[in-house]
Amino acid sequence: MAKPFLLGVLGGMGPLAAVDFQHQLLQAVNSQSDQQQIPMVVWNVPQIPDRQQALAGTGPSPLPQLIDGIEKLNRVGASHIVMACNTAHHWFEALQAASQAPLLHIADATAEAVAALSPTSVGLIATQGTLDAGWFQQRFARHGIETLLPTATEIRDYFVPGCYAVKRGEVAAGGELLARQAQALLDRGAERLVLACTEVPLALRAADWQPPRKAIDPAEAMAALCASLWQQQQTLF
Amino acid sequence: MAKPFLLGVLGGMGPLAAVDFQHQLLQAVNSQSDQQQIPMVVWNVPQIPDRQQALAGTGPSPLPQLIDGIEKLNRVGASHIVMACNTAHHWFEALQAASQAPLLHIADATAEAVAALSPTSVGLIATQGTLDAGWFQQRFARHGIETLLPTATEIRDYFVPGCYAVKRGEVAAGGELLARQAQALLDRGAERLVLACTEVPLALRAADWQPPRKAIDPAEAMAALCASLWQQQQTLF
Repeated sequence: MAKPFLLGVLGGMGPLAAVDFQHQLLQAVNSQSDQQQIPMVVWNVPQIPDRQQALAGTGPSPLPQLIDGIEKLNRVGASHIVMACNTAHHWFEALQAASQAPLLHIADATAEAVAALSPTSVGLIATQGTLDAGWFQQRFARHGIETLLPTATEIRDYFVPGCYAVKRGEVAAGGELLARQAQALLDRGAERLVLACTEVPLALRAADWQPPRKAIDPAEAMAALCASLWQQQQTLF
Repeated sequence: MAKPFLLGVLGGMGPLAAVDFQHQLLQAVNSQSDQQQIPMVVWNVPQIPDRQQALAGTGPSPLPQLIDGIEKLNRVGASHIVMACNTAHHWFEALQAASQAPLLHIADATAEAVAALSPTSVGLIATQGTLDAGWFQQRFARHGIETLLPTATEIRDYFVPGCYAVKRGEVAAGGELLARQAQALLDRGAERLVLACTEVPLALRAADWQPPRKAIDPAEAMAALCASLWQQQQTLF
């Protein structure tokens, strides 16, 4: 007998993004009743080293805490595990190796959502670590889609201070800075934006900024993938 | 050595209320960084029988599923457990008996929040099951605070149709009816209102109605209690 569907969400990076992602999961299921919603367990423990600092070599690795969360989610029967944080996907292979339950990769979910819109180019907003990893660009390229990246100056002046403002709770102020990053990519010709850092979509909303064409939110793409897996499973009964 | 602080949230009743409660927890902590937020694990599995039908004797008991959730939260090390649903507190004693970790009662948290405001009387808006259980009234009485209850007519004409409208998604229309319930209690002399049913605060907001003095939201009071326990624990180090 297959394990019953139970979505494990590895959160804490940050705690607000994990709550936001749960909202997206509820919205992704077209539900007539509570009972039709995705059964889930959420490990939302933010006492974990900063991922960006770890990747920059200026802080400890978050891997031990990430593995601990993965073990806890497996211990209570998670059938699938997702992470509501793009940067944490740097440790994806190590976490998959530590997990009985399969992990779903956020870039796979995003590439599917982007390909469905058939743009010729996208602008990618993400941390330096995520940009360097290349997992979004590689997947978009497989669909013939060009990826435009932020410049070093934009990252220094807009992206990094914008994200840290959001983390401090200054969401609208952070959104103003992130909107400049977004606009810079549009000005260089990006047809669509991929907001591959969980702080970005909520900060842009708080700053009341939106692009001319709907941006792709990887967390939303992941939520849609989870909803689709859950609904497929239900039709088996 | 004491067990590390880890808040277990038994959700699923309904899944949206559990997500809203996590927002309230984040807001209750006056945090400068992610790492200062409450570490938590959330069991949000909505495949659980309807609590109101179970209490009315017209449906199966949710107790087996509630105990399963409590066991899962204990298995991953929860140090304290809370439920973001007033009605589920009918099974509080049975769940406490099944749990190593202490459960915090929503009426204790509420009584503390109400007592801090020192009203002579409060109006209590809740389901018939919660009113009959008496757990709010008893605790308020210990603080010398009188509880005014909805009349049978008000429950029939305002509270019940108001709640069902909200559940159908007609949130503002439900809020209009619930506002009449709230106003009736104020007209009979309630100094403050206690909105002890998760639908009520959001419906009143949707109907753009607010009482002359800030109402007490038990879920918010519970979030404040959790934040206070977490912050006390941190000062021990």
